[in-house]
Amino acid sequence: MPKNREAARANLESLYRIFTVPESPDSTLGSIDQAISSDVAGFLQTHIVAIERSLDEIEAHFASAAIPEEPTYVSEYTEFVKAHLVAQSVHTAAPGFVGHMTSALPYFMHPLARLMTALNQNLVKVETSKAFTPMERQVLAMLHHLVYRFDDDFYPPWIHNSMYALGAFCSGGTIANVTALWVARNRLFAPDGTFGGIAQEGLGRALQHRGVNGIAVFVSERGHYSLGKAADLLGIGRDNLIKVQTDARNRIDLKLLRAECRRLQDRNIMPLALVGIAGTTETGNVDPLEALADFAQELGCHFHVDAAWGGPTLFSDRYRSLLSGIGRADSVTVDAHKQLYVPMGAGMVVFKDPTALSAIEHHANYILRHGSKDLGSHTLEGSRPGMAMLVHAGLSIIGRKGYELLIDMGIERSRTFADMIKKHPDFELTSEPELNILTYRYCPHAVQQALATATAEQRSSINELLDQVCQLMQKHQREAGKTFVSRTRLRVDRYSEELTVLRVVLANPLTTDEILGAVLAEECEIVQLPEIQALLRQVEERCALMGVPDN
Amino acid sequence: MPKNREAARANLESLYRIFTVPESPDSTLGSIDQAISSDVAGFLQTHIVAIERSLDEIEAHFASAAIPEEPTYVSEYTEFVKAHLVAQSVHTAAPGFVGHMTSALPYFMHPLARLMTALNQNLVKVETSKAFTPMERQVLAMLHHLVYRFDDDFYPPWIHNSMYALGAFCSGGTIANVTALWVARNRLFAPDGTFGGIAQEGLGRALQHRGVNGIAVFVSERGHYSLGKAADLLGIGRDNLIKVQTDARNRIDLKLLRAECRRLQDRNIMPLALVGIAGTTETGNVDPLEALADFAQELGCHFHVDAAWGGPTLFSDRYRSLLSGIGRADSVTVDAHKQLYVPMGAGMVVFKDPTALSAIEHHANYILRHGSKDLGSHTLEGSRPGMAMLVHAGLSIIGRKGYELLIDMGIERSRTFADMIKKHPDFELTSEPELNILTYRYCPHAVQQALATATAEQRSSINELLDQVCQLMQKHQREAGKTFVSRTRLRVDRYSEELTVLRVVLANPLTTDEILGAVLAEECEIVQLPEIQALLRQVEERCALMGVPDN
Repeated sequence: MPKNREAARANLESLYRIFTVPESPDSTLGSIDQAISSDVAGFLQTHIVAIERSLDEIEAHFASAAIPEEPTYVSEYTEFVKAHLVAQSVHTAAPGFVGHMTSALPYFMHPLARLMTALNQNLVKVETSKAFTPMERQVLAMLHHLVYRFDDDFYPPWIHNSMYALGAFCSGGTIANVTALWVARNRLFAPDGTFGGIAQEGLGRALQHRGVNGIAVFVSERGHYSLGKAADLLGIGRDNLIKVQTDARNRIDLKLLRAECRRLQDRNIMPLALVGIAGTTETGNVDPLEALADFAQELGCHFHVDAAWGGPTLFSDRYRSLLSGIGRADSVTVDAHKQLYVPMGAGMVVFKDPTALSAIEHHANYILRHGSKDLGSHTLEGSRPGMAMLVHAGLSIIGRKGYELLIDMGIERSRTFADMIKKHPDFELTSEPELNILTYRYCPHAVQQALATATAEQRSSINELLDQVCQLMQKHQREAGKTFVSRTRLRVDRYSEELTVLRVVLANPLTTDEILGAVLAEECEIVQLPEIQALLRQVEERCALMGVPDN
Repeated sequence: MPKNREAARANLESLYRIFTVPESPDSTLGSIDQAISSDVAGFLQTHIVAIERSLDEIEAHFASAAIPEEPTYVSEYTEFVKAHLVAQSVHTAAPGFVGHMTSALPYFMHPLARLMTALNQNLVKVETSKAFTPMERQVLAMLHHLVYRFDDDFYPPWIHNSMYALGAFCSGGTIANVTALWVARNRLFAPDGTFGGIAQEGLGRALQHRGVNGIAVFVSERGHYSLGKAADLLGIGRDNLIKVQTDARNRIDLKLLRAECRRLQDRNIMPLALVGIAGTTETGNVDPLEALADFAQELGCHFHVDAAWGGPTLFSDRYRSLLSGIGRADSVTVDAHKQLYVPMGAGMVVFKDPTALSAIEHHANYILRHGSKDLGSHTLEGSRPGMAMLVHAGLSIIGRKGYELLIDMGIERSRTFADMIKKHPDFELTSEPELNILTYRYCPHAVQQALATATAEQRSSINELLDQVCQLMQKHQREAGKTFVSRTRLRVDRYSEELTVLRVVLANPLTTDEILGAVLAEECEIVQLPEIQALLRQVEERCALMGVPDN
């Protein structure tokens, strides 16, 4: 056999091997696999390096744009992954990682996620998903039921109806919010006489047909940034996403909303949708949904609720009423990868009217044929994995009562943490927890007193320095890698100005009060860093100039 | 302790358990997990039921819209999954499943996907992804390099530049195509003098500003249905997605394209983008990309190439030239969950101009701050899983040469299969494979001869029956569960009409020529079913009426 044919044959054989022969259990990949199976948390704790390396340093290992010519041994690659990817990733499941919305996963999600990968179903069509299609339809119906509480006899005609879908399973809340506003837009500009509808004729013709200059979406200034993307994407324009100021509790100001609406209508810009928030990303507050529903009804426009975060509060008998009015929404977004404790990549939107999604229905010749039950005819995305299985697993295994417990614990732990902050002389709570998110900042007791009597100008000059303190604290805490809080900028009513604040999200059931105590204690230590002390001395000086004692 | 407090405590403890204590290896879930680890294909083969149950029957197990009140044992749920989900799913990895674009995965993807789930990173921001961010940036650069072949010194200033992104990692090709056209639209209507740009002011004002009645996208009639969704979503309107007829080889007809363009320009509708296809979904053909690039240049519009399927052909020294001209595209879509053999949920779009994605850039206060390297500031989606890691693994472990082998094998196997079809008297090839997709249909030899001399009317009446034969064959073959081909409707040049045809996609390296022989053999058996024989007798009758011998 000539040499190059021999080489080609060897290549071919090793290629078949990677498609057929699994790794032996004592290989590197096999042992990582086993370690994760037997103790995920332990594996992560052992392998994720606590002390932060700089991004520049990490980037050096991901610097080349050239695709490797030659194959690599799986074991060699696995060593690389362990050293440069696992070691330098974020331990999002750590109980002290309370800064973002990614928390621990129930252990059963890991093997089930593996099963999902192994089955590699594609939910766009029944031909590549089979039982996964009815399963996803059931999950959407369950969420619909959670939100709208329709009678049991409402569902049978719709749940598996090939013509309709009660909602859309998405890669996340952004696509869910986009889908909701897309449906709202297409229903506002539905086919009408000679006008073929916006889906066919486009937005330019749609505006002409209705004789309006534009369409607008209204949300509070706490609205998620995905709404800005949606306004851009859908041709509405970011200028027509009206971000209404909030009250002292981070809820949309209804008077200002009315005024904004009038202002736009005077310019012949038509209200497309009101968006209520059930769990603002930064502060976890809930808009007055009943009042928003009333106003949407008055305007005759779509009412969407972004409950990406707060939706699962509906599991709780005690706290469900915080979301009162959500059942009047035309559409509701809920993220499963947040408080349903499903791995990253699972959002949903449900529609009160089970025919609503027809506004974005589409077909093709090779799939999504008319009358097929293919879910892809009512989703923005095409090919999609079977993530709904993990939602189904969560709902079945944890059950309504289990989720209730998780929700209740989170809300109550937030109140406890808020009390700890309030009791501490040198911290200041900047937003009260309504659900399980709160914000606060470091502000020495004496400075708090000084600010209470300061002029607006004096306040600004002091807050500016405290913003820098806050930013540095967060950075050092993240880099030390023991605990993690996030930061944001927020208009705080008390000072009528935007401040940099620390943000805490309490959804990990393994987070204890002791860990929260340690978060504050670590922050007090960080404040001792010379860099931060220098800033605090400047704060003291500015307070002294005001004639207020610095301690 | 009172009874209800005791119960609450027990609940809480079992809740902690599911977040902490993994399943024992000899539990149901543990043993499924182990079985998948040691032999994925074997597990699937054993547990996926070959004979199809009706969807109605399956739906009965997913009928309730009520979320279970009480928690369920993991083991009990796992039994349910095994019986009703795994058993009734589609064995997409089977070598005889050659009907769609979902194929077998290299075994190493399974443990690595598990690792990805365990790490549960969120790629929207560095704070929840760390090393995954540079890794994803590298993957995008590698794809960019594969497509555009810029010099090595092009990449260092861009690859990890916080201000820019060379592309966007997406949940799939649909979002990738939407992103490409979104960028094109926003660049066409960039800020200009007092006009703040379409992102700010919306599509209505944008059209006014340019003084045009609309914008249009041009693609061949083989274009993927995601482009229709994009036209709807972006406010362009489906009427302005111009589907140009193809030539005999399923490639866009350039003369007709020119004519369509003129027709729209006469109506003051501006060309937004030309879309070339590198691997049409239904037939795997490649548009004349060089000529399209020339024409886009002439029009001064965006040139997008949808290489969701065919992109990886660029790995092959032998077949790369089939995509000649792709490097002149402004943007290119490639799906990793297709010919990069990554699990479902991974698409990418790259842009030739590394500043292009600035047209859809966005920020927020708590993440995606200006100057951060957060990838989320340049993606349509928000929170996203670390799927890029599996692309990184594929590129590293399989290497350019490994992918080349896979591509070459697929193309060559398609030619072999095409020959088998051509040699068989009763099958008719309805599209020649250019890459690794072909279509064909059952058409008895005598009928083929009759059709050759038939009038248009006679042809139609016969083809109508053959369409029914095709549809039934595909249904029975799918239901029998041994092998699987898909079907579509396609205008076949030879007959100047649309026919129902069988479609085969050859990307699974485990598919052998023997299996392809078995596919045809099975189809010949299916044809013997009384239902199909009855149709074929009608065909014979119609042929006889034409005075052509029926055998």
